[in-house]
Amino acid sequence: MTEMTTTTGKKTIIVFSGEMDKILAAFVIANGAAAMGDDVTMFFTFWGLNVLRKDASAHVHKTALERAFSWMMPRGTEHLRMSHFNFAGAGPHLLSHMMKAHHVDPISEMLATAREQGIQMIACTMSMDVMGIRREELIDGIDYAGVATYLGEADEANVNLFI
Amino acid sequence: MTEMTTTTGKKTIIVFSGEMDKILAAFVIANGAAAMGDDVTMFFTFWGLNVLRKDASAHVHKTALERAFSWMMPRGTEHLRMSHFNFAGAGPHLLSHMMKAHHVDPISEMLATAREQGIQMIACTMSMDVMGIRREELIDGIDYAGVATYLGEADEANVNLFI
Amino acid sequence: MTEMTTTTGKKTIIVFSGEMDKILAAFVIANGAAAMGDDVTMFFTFWGLNVLRKDASAHVHKTALERAFSWMMPRGTEHLRMSHFNFAGAGPHLLSHMMKAHHVDPISEMLATAREQGIQMIACTMSMDVMGIRREELIDGIDYAGVATYLGEADEANVNLFI
Repeated sequence: MTEMTTTTGKKTIIVFSGEMDKILAAFVIANGAAAMGDDVTMFFTFWGLNVLRKDASAHVHKTALERAFSWMMPRGTEHLRMSHFNFAGAGPHLLSHMMKAHHVDPISEMLATAREQGIQMIACTMSMDVMGIRREELIDGIDYAGVATYLGEADEANVNLFI
Repeated sequence: MTEMTTTTGKKTIIVFSGEMDKILAAFVIANGAAAMGDDVTMFFTFWGLNVLRKDASAHVHKTALERAFSWMMPRGTEHLRMSHFNFAGAGPHLLSHMMKAHHVDPISEMLATAREQGIQMIACTMSMDVMGIRREELIDGIDYAGVATYLGEADEANVNLFI
Repeated sequence: MTEMTTTTGKKTIIVFSGEMDKILAAFVIANGAAAMGDDVTMFFTFWGLNVLRKDASAHVHKTALERAFSWMMPRGTEHLRMSHFNFAGAGPHLLSHMMKAHHVDPISEMLATAREQGIQMIACTMSMDVMGIRREELIDGIDYAGVATYLGEADEANVNLFI
């Protein structure tokens, strides 16, 4: 085995968690890599899908169970919880306050930046099914795919994170 | 530095978390990669070890402390909790229901598929020690090793995730 | 695409989580890799920063909000919580007891070993800002940097984990 360094200029991040602090970490890494010229793919699955939900409720047919699930989960970047110190929503307000004080973009803007920078955003169709989330409920301009697509992207990348 | 893409056909996943939703993600990725022809190693450590526990209690000697620990932790794929919305066990039932409705295999079958596909499953011996878990308590046909083995596998892989 | 194996001898770990069990995993991997001759970079961010905090309170000016945040978070390796079974601090004592019984070093010693082995420890300056943590509050001999530095290190590594 020879010592070597590979630079493929590509990164992938599986965004499984939906907590504000982890989403912040995911976007800081993704936007940082894109700013340095790397191709970046973010694969949103499970709780991470909540980041991509439209703020307004979409008129889609759901079973009672899916409606209950839908209602419990945060809708979009403005309603995320924290993994610690959530304090019924006071924690995220506090974090937002501290971010603003230190000129760190709010997550809604980080999402906008990610899109402007051409970061590929994929919503995991299997977890959409399992969680009862419809395409109409998610923001426009994203892709829909499953694990095979993720693996294809990851095979081409030199950094692959699960957040 | 030259731009290049490496494909080693190997993936490793450290399964640290024991929650049903994360275990589902781990097996979907692992089985997906194996189906595409990749070698896959899953390294189960800490809470992830619970996935490998036999459903029935094994007759092994344990200290009072180890027994308490053992009793609190889920035993096998049928008793996993969720990282969110667990609701004293209603959450996992709900998730199982939604998985079934969308023809997603239950985790017990994903585990069976993983084994059929030849995915290497390693139980981390250090965390077994620390958590008081004995080999007799884990399912047959798995390997036992420590961090050096994990690192050797990861060095040969092009995608390494910590879940 | 040709099949090949790369060995760069470098690993990076983003230490985002601050729970005792995940920190233990992070140090076992980092120290294991370093013992095998690999370069290792640990990038401490968010809750992971608590690992690097000095045990004693530092005399730094903080806003009321920052003080409240500071007071709630664990200070150093001796005060970490667990991700499950914390039981108001009984869980970490139990884990420490089990680690000692099986000759696993306490986390404070793993941190010392990491430093002796020359593992690079970087505190994420952006999350320090956002969490109101000052350099005076962190242990000596660490580096301070942002996401660009992390990405540079990760580009040179063959295993990159987010814990």
